[in-house]
Amino acid sequence: MSENQLLEIDRELRGGDAAAASLAEQRAGFEAYCARPAAPDVTVTPVTVGGVPGLRAEPPTTTAGTLLYLHGGGYSIGSARSGLALATALARRAGTSAVSLDYRLAPEAVFPAAVDDGVAAYRALLDQDPPERLAMAGDSAGAGLALAVLLRARDAGLPLPAAVVAMSPWVDLTLTGESLRTHEALDPIFDAAGIAQIAALYLGGADPSDPTASPLHADLHGLPPLLVQVGSHEVLLDDATRLAARAASAHVDVVLEVVAGAPHVFQHFAGRLEEADLALDRAGRFLADRLGR
Amino acid sequence: MSENQLLEIDRELRGGDAAAASLAEQRAGFEAYCARPAAPDVTVTPVTVGGVPGLRAEPPTTTAGTLLYLHGGGYSIGSARSGLALATALARRAGTSAVSLDYRLAPEAVFPAAVDDGVAAYRALLDQDPPERLAMAGDSAGAGLALAVLLRARDAGLPLPAAVVAMSPWVDLTLTGESLRTHEALDPIFDAAGIAQIAALYLGGADPSDPTASPLHADLHGLPPLLVQVGSHEVLLDDATRLAARAASAHVDVVLEVVAGAPHVFQHFAGRLEEADLALDRAGRFLADRLGR
Repeated sequence: MSENQLLEIDRELRGGDAAAASLAEQRAGFEAYCARPAAPDVTVTPVTVGGVPGLRAEPPTTTAGTLLYLHGGGYSIGSARSGLALATALARRAGTSAVSLDYRLAPEAVFPAAVDDGVAAYRALLDQDPPERLAMAGDSAGAGLALAVLLRARDAGLPLPAAVVAMSPWVDLTLTGESLRTHEALDPIFDAAGIAQIAALYLGGADPSDPTASPLHADLHGLPPLLVQVGSHEVLLDDATRLAARAASAHVDVVLEVVAGAPHVFQHFAGRLEEADLALDRAGRFLADRLGR
Repeated sequence: MSENQLLEIDRELRGGDAAAASLAEQRAGFEAYCARPAAPDVTVTPVTVGGVPGLRAEPPTTTAGTLLYLHGGGYSIGSARSGLALATALARRAGTSAVSLDYRLAPEAVFPAAVDDGVAAYRALLDQDPPERLAMAGDSAGAGLALAVLLRARDAGLPLPAAVVAMSPWVDLTLTGESLRTHEALDPIFDAAGIAQIAALYLGGADPSDPTASPLHADLHGLPPLLVQVGSHEVLLDDATRLAARAASAHVDVVLEVVAGAPHVFQHFAGRLEEADLALDRAGRFLADRLGR
């Protein structure tokens, strides 16, 4: 346990004041928060996948296939660029290349635009790679989006990828998790009211219990092996634990990993928090073990 | 996925008729079910630990400490001998020796006799090894018992072991898991009525919601890192998923692994079911990574 690092990160995160900023300022701030020095051995190329822009990252060894990565940011902030560090970290460990997708954001494009973009990109990747060489991952809203894309792909009869990694998934826009309230003081980033605002912005009036808006409420049968990682200090903790339970009940292979004391998408802190590097190592191994079987 | 092996095992398990047998017949049958050829490189010695009999298993490399193993069998069947194969499989992978405990069984000795025996044995192991070189594991009722022993040890101010592995844990004797009903047809071993009988036999009139009878209902703060493994075909599935969620809410480091299509304590089928060997490998690594830190 890196207790000192966790406390230091908690203090830093509480220093921000994202709620008071305009959306444009939040977007700029999030890019800065997610920015990491480019790894010199990774080639990054702008691409268009199924009509959707993105960034392709090629670590040196990319023999196992392609990882479709869906960044976080509450469906209203973030970009292919902000998702690049985590996409690359996972891809390097899984032995794949990564496509970090610039799906459309709210409020400019509300639900289900992001899902449409994710499905279009997944269809295009299926033209390039067999499904057993594809994987999917995302953090926060991006993890919920990955599950929504999988549900749509399943229902359309498309073959599904080998595995999916969901980091701190946001999968319940009906906001019924107990931890939204019980963990509010512990969470240095979110509170329940802020999450409700973000949900409304994305939904644009749509029903929050629509299973492609809230995959927690979907029938999850037939989904590929799923790894869920979450920090115990998150207001979204119950999204993760309930997702794992729902998937288990639907006979999905599931692994849930809860890191005590860690904040939302603690994997962002790889390099200074041991738990982050170890979590990425486990996630990469989870993908590598299932790709190409 | 070993779908054929899972189907074959399911058919075999349905062939039994344990419910119709006397307790003596069930005990004999369970010993046979759990019996595995002795590994030639493991030394097994009868021991007494804190006044409680057991078997010590020493695989060739036992430098990392000692694993206290609590066998399954609904608190009324099973023995140190029936737990030996899983205890040894875990200890070998964790790099420890194992003590498989002959805690007292119901109905001859009802709740909390088994918990008392587990705590006595743990206290005795603490005299021999520092806590960071101790681990605990169990299957089914034995996994629930391991948690009950940890809760008692915590509340007594004893130092806690490095980690705990709970295979198909039975942690809710109030029998409120939805899967008790929803998964009844899928489970080749148990049904809700049979589990209610076993609970009554153990409790001997005690309150099923007592947290040392039903650790699911305990305050789990301060427990050591916990790995929970379960099969998705179990009526006890919700015991596992709810335990993981409760522990997560209490800021315990938790990993939950759900193996799709697998039955209760599928790790018994190591050697013929790939999922069983892989689960034991992961559990051994979970312990090894945390011992001696």
